Amino acid sequence: MIPSTSRLRPLAADRVTILDGFWGDRLRTNRERTIPHGFAELGHSGVLDNLRLAAGMEGRYRASADSGGSTLPFVDSDAYKWLEAVGWELGRGAYPALAEAADEVIGLIGAAQQPDGYVNSFIQLGSGQPHQDLAWSHEFYCAGHLIQAAVAWHRAVGDDRLLEIAVRAADRIDAEFGPGRRDGIDGHPVIEMALVELTRVTGDRRYLALAARMIDLRGYGLLGDGRFGRSYWQDHAPVRDAAEVAGHAVRQLYLDAGAVDVAVELDDDTLLDAVRRRWDDLMHTRTYLTGGMGSRHRDEAFGDPYELPPDRAYTETCAAIASVMLAWRLLLATGDPGYADAIERGMYNGVLPGISLSGTRFFYTNPLQRRTERTFEPPAHGPRAPWYACACCPPNLMRLFSSWQQYLATSDASGVQLHQYTAADVRADVGGDPVRLIMRTDYPWSGRVAVHVVETPDTPWTLSLRVPAWCRSASITGPDGVGPGSAQSGAGRGATSSDWADIRARSERSEPASRAPQVTDRGMLQRTRTWRTGDAVVLELDMPIRVTEPDPRIDAVRGCVAVERGPLVYCVESADTPPGVPVEDLRWDASRQPAAEPRPDLGPAVVGVTVPLADGGTAGAIPYYAWANRDVEAMRVWLPLP
Amino acid sequence: MIPSTSRLRPLAADRVTILDGFWGDRLRTNRERTIPHGFAELGHSGVLDNLRLAAGMEGRYRASADSGGSTLPFVDSDAYKWLEAVGWELGRGAYPALAEAADEVIGLIGAAQQPDGYVNSFIQLGSGQPHQDLAWSHEFYCAGHLIQAAVAWHRAVGDDRLLEIAVRAADRIDAEFGPGRRDGIDGHPVIEMALVELTRVTGDRRYLALAARMIDLRGYGLLGDGRFGRSYWQDHAPVRDAAEVAGHAVRQLYLDAGAVDVAVELDDDTLLDAVRRRWDDLMHTRTYLTGGMGSRHRDEAFGDPYELPPDRAYTETCAAIASVMLAWRLLLATGDPGYADAIERGMYNGVLPGISLSGTRFFYTNPLQRRTERTFEPPAHGPRAPWYACACCPPNLMRLFSSWQQYLATSDASGVQLHQYTAADVRADVGGDPVRLIMRTDYPWSGRVAVHVVETPDTPWTLSLRVPAWCRSASITGPDGVGPGSAQSGAGRGATSSDWADIRARSERSEPASRAPQVTDRGMLQRTRTWRTGDAVVLELDMPIRVTEPDPRIDAVRGCVAVERGPLVYCVESADTPPGVPVEDLRWDASRQPAAEPRPDLGPAVVGVTVPLADGGTAGAIPYYAWANRDVEAMRVWLPLP
Repeated sequence: MIPSTSRLRPLAADRVTILDGFWGDRLRTNRERTIPHGFAELGHSGVLDNLRLAAGMEGRYRASADSGGSTLPFVDSDAYKWLEAVGWELGRGAYPALAEAADEVIGLIGAAQQPDGYVNSFIQLGSGQPHQDLAWSHEFYCAGHLIQAAVAWHRAVGDDRLLEIAVRAADRIDAEFGPGRRDGIDGHPVIEMALVELTRVTGDRRYLALAARMIDLRGYGLLGDGRFGRSYWQDHAPVRDAAEVAGHAVRQLYLDAGAVDVAVELDDDTLLDAVRRRWDDLMHTRTYLTGGMGSRHRDEAFGDPYELPPDRAYTETCAAIASVMLAWRLLLATGDPGYADAIERGMYNGVLPGISLSGTRFFYTNPLQRRTERTFEPPAHGPRAPWYACACCPPNLMRLFSSWQQYLATSDASGVQLHQYTAADVRADVGGDPVRLIMRTDYPWSGRVAVHVVETPDTPWTLSLRVPAWCRSASITGPDGVGPGSAQSGAGRGATSSDWADIRARSERSEPASRAPQVTDRGMLQRTRTWRTGDAVVLELDMPIRVTEPDPRIDAVRGCVAVERGPLVYCVESADTPPGVPVEDLRWDASRQPAAEPRPDLGPAVVGVTVPLADGGTAGAIPYYAWANRDVEAMRVWLPLP
Repeated sequence: MIPSTSRLRPLAADRVTILDGFWGDRLRTNRERTIPHGFAELGHSGVLDNLRLAAGMEGRYRASADSGGSTLPFVDSDAYKWLEAVGWELGRGAYPALAEAADEVIGLIGAAQQPDGYVNSFIQLGSGQPHQDLAWSHEFYCAGHLIQAAVAWHRAVGDDRLLEIAVRAADRIDAEFGPGRRDGIDGHPVIEMALVELTRVTGDRRYLALAARMIDLRGYGLLGDGRFGRSYWQDHAPVRDAAEVAGHAVRQLYLDAGAVDVAVELDDDTLLDAVRRRWDDLMHTRTYLTGGMGSRHRDEAFGDPYELPPDRAYTETCAAIASVMLAWRLLLATGDPGYADAIERGMYNGVLPGISLSGTRFFYTNPLQRRTERTFEPPAHGPRAPWYACACCPPNLMRLFSSWQQYLATSDASGVQLHQYTAADVRADVGGDPVRLIMRTDYPWSGRVAVHVVETPDTPWTLSLRVPAWCRSASITGPDGVGPGSAQSGAGRGATSSDWADIRARSERSEPASRAPQVTDRGMLQRTRTWRTGDAVVLELDMPIRVTEPDPRIDAVRGCVAVERGPLVYCVESADTPPGVPVEDLRWDASRQPAAEPRPDLGPAVVGVTVPLADGGTAGAIPYYAWANRDVEAMRVWLPLP
């Protein structure tokens, strides 16, 4: 992605390599277990059969049977998202099994595509009439995911088989819906982002114009009222006017991500400001402590401000993924480190819980509370599932993990910015000269991040390091020598060294509504100098256990507290409560302090928290992302005070 | 309804007359405003057009357009429920306009009915193929409401036009689904109750056998899994086995009401005990303070135990109506006054809020909290609606109000039981001799109830008066002379007179889960004597304002209290808060006492409550049933403590 008018520039997929540690482990699981599992499920669920049948081959058309009797119109997108993930992976290495599987799927898509460029197995196997029911049909939505996969293959692998298919599909849509032709928008946004990327890849500005048109057509009732009202499909208010997020969370977030893409390409500050305004309101009034978004099951929607029930949180995994995509675009567009904070919170606590540690079981929704006694559940209904009839989330996780290294760092004319901390090799250009940095860290278990300069020009440039909003005290050592004897620069609590400038975030830092507002005046630590190969900087982010009180406007968690440490939100599972004490009966003892404890049972270096209970005992809290990986009945993030 | 093995006998519709006062006013509004409004809406919504078209006449078939694009299969039932209400009304007096309207509707139904007895406009205008999709089609459901209307007309008016139609419809179902033939149950129970009534009216036990069969066929997956799981349509567990309520609240409650009907006719204690067990669990774990039931919007379902969010309470008006119908059947079957307590709570606080004071605006859902700031709502989306695309609730309210006098009193071999207090004329037979009582009271505003004996045999019989579970102190005067000088019998706090026996409820009194458990040992006050014409008894139920704490297991209202007085739950509306203080910012001052205040603006004799606020001020609380009758933005039942 190379946006035109962004404040920060992304680094190409091959410029950043995640080395090992927390994210290295997760990404290996993604490649070795999750993506192959996904391919198997594309087969079992009938998604590939749909494409085979649309291509005139033999197939069982299983997609309908697995979705409870009604075929879901968007199953093609499962394949496209999976292909996008594989594209990013093949950019990093030769994985013959993945490549072979992808070849098969690409072949099916190409064979299914009609001569006019149209491809959508649901319509081709059904009515045969394209674009008759844009409110529900997800045709542009599927095309959007096709384009996104094609862009990934183009950028990561230099393989344009998918891009040729995608261009034909996009041209087919443009021919019918381009400027001056039929007005059409999709009930489920996503194609807007994709079309902007297609312009960036091909240079053909027709796609950008079509995306802009699809943004501008919304809000005038083109799709009708439907069952859930116009906000469900983001047709209730013009995109430039709506002051608050509304309706289906994933659709709102995808739409706003596309709006940012259009805004930066067209230098459209009005549009960008509208998205920023909504994001700010969203963070302050409708975001869970976990970064999760979407409070309502009925229509997968945002609720009222401060309507954030922990038990019935919908907080779809895809919404957390979408929030990362949107926050990333806003970070690029503005440089505001608050958006990187949101990415961090969302990745660790909103996205990661959506997949098991094994990599092959998923959550569609991510509640912050599960009771010991529950309403009737079918016998086979466990807390995590290997796949879903509506399987949007699993391949969405795959593609985000496969491209996660692209979210770590950016560059601009003056230097390099490190937004997320994990062991990684980062290469960038500053003023046309190569810069290469190696990050070493045990993050998120430790707040110590060492940055080594491996390659640098002989001219001054600026290194910027994010200080997360949760961090109340940060110190930095170097680059003028690394070690205990070096100068300490206090980044928090007013102690800013003369070496490192503490750049206040441009906007007030946005923290989720589900925590008490915290005043923070930190943002990015910056140092401009002539760097030398071998220079090293060590950032120490203080990472005490934090006991978080909810915003008093959140009715659903009144009288409760939650535990956080570093970027992680914690929870208590029934497996870690005293014998015979259900999770519901736990009461937090505010007079005693929680304590860190190693939890090797959940992975190397994992830090758990022992929480004090009012009965004098304790319970073990684990990172929320790791919940439901053992045999558990109940869990809660917010613990009541006595 | 004349159940075979019940502990108590209901009184026929014409044996009880509600005179005036609270319920007299509401029932007049029902007859004069609500039912005529309903007829107009049956026209506007296309329900009558559906029947016209099915009858081969001209019609617009409007029912589809008003339901957002998808025709709802159960619209015929709107007409049946409306007809049932009219039947009960015509039993009380000649209302020519109602009679004329009803004649038209009955004529349409008769004309639409096929020669084989089948009648269902949705199927007749659609596939033409009956009983192809019992899970979703609501065909038995519609037939059930047809039968219930027919029974009402038979009993109240002695007019059997509908009964003949209903018998043909029932025979058509029995011919296909009776014992030894095709197994079939409806996704939405209701026909079970109706078939038992049809046996009671016709004496033909085939219908009872069919009802029993439909009860016994549930729980084996006959309907498949569907979108919401088998519990949605009560097919997840055998009716005799399920320990807890589950799934769609209205469906569960209608099914259990039918199960009680079958149980008392077949003297089937196992079946009755299963329903009682579920009811008891329901009251303790899943019932709102208002008596409302159903916590989830997505599938209109019961939630987990103690999952009782005030803001997203679904608490469908129909579920409250169904709970009254079920509790009434359990009261008859067992004599346990706890069920009459539930009827009282449900009628005043679960059913009544569903209709405006004007009688022509409705709530489908009845949340206990509405925020000042809310998520996007379409411009015309007000808090009450004149009708709904899915209009089950409005005519359900009509038929319940039109038959409400039947819920007030019962008789048995030894005497008369008064369960609900309102100005009424009650006639019963005791041992074959006529008894006539006149109740005079300002209930629910006053706890004073005078019972005058107008007609009595010369032999001893027992008068039983319910002492509601909310009442902590009751006294009774008479029958040996009325006045200050007469003996006072303390019914509460252990002071029981020798004249009046305080009969402990057979089962522990069931109070809603959303209040703290209260121990009560009161139930029915009973006196057996030879009554004389002119005898009078005055029951005084102490009715102080109660500040109710929630059960600590209810996460969603932790740290809050609610106000109750007598049978009424109160709420604070934005119209009664101090200027500039949104409802969300109110905090209850536990150090000061609430006080009663007259609220003539909401009706004659209405008692409001002034609640103390932590800022030193006060806010006005009104009966919850009266909310949203003024221009209000926000409301809440549960008020946070500071």
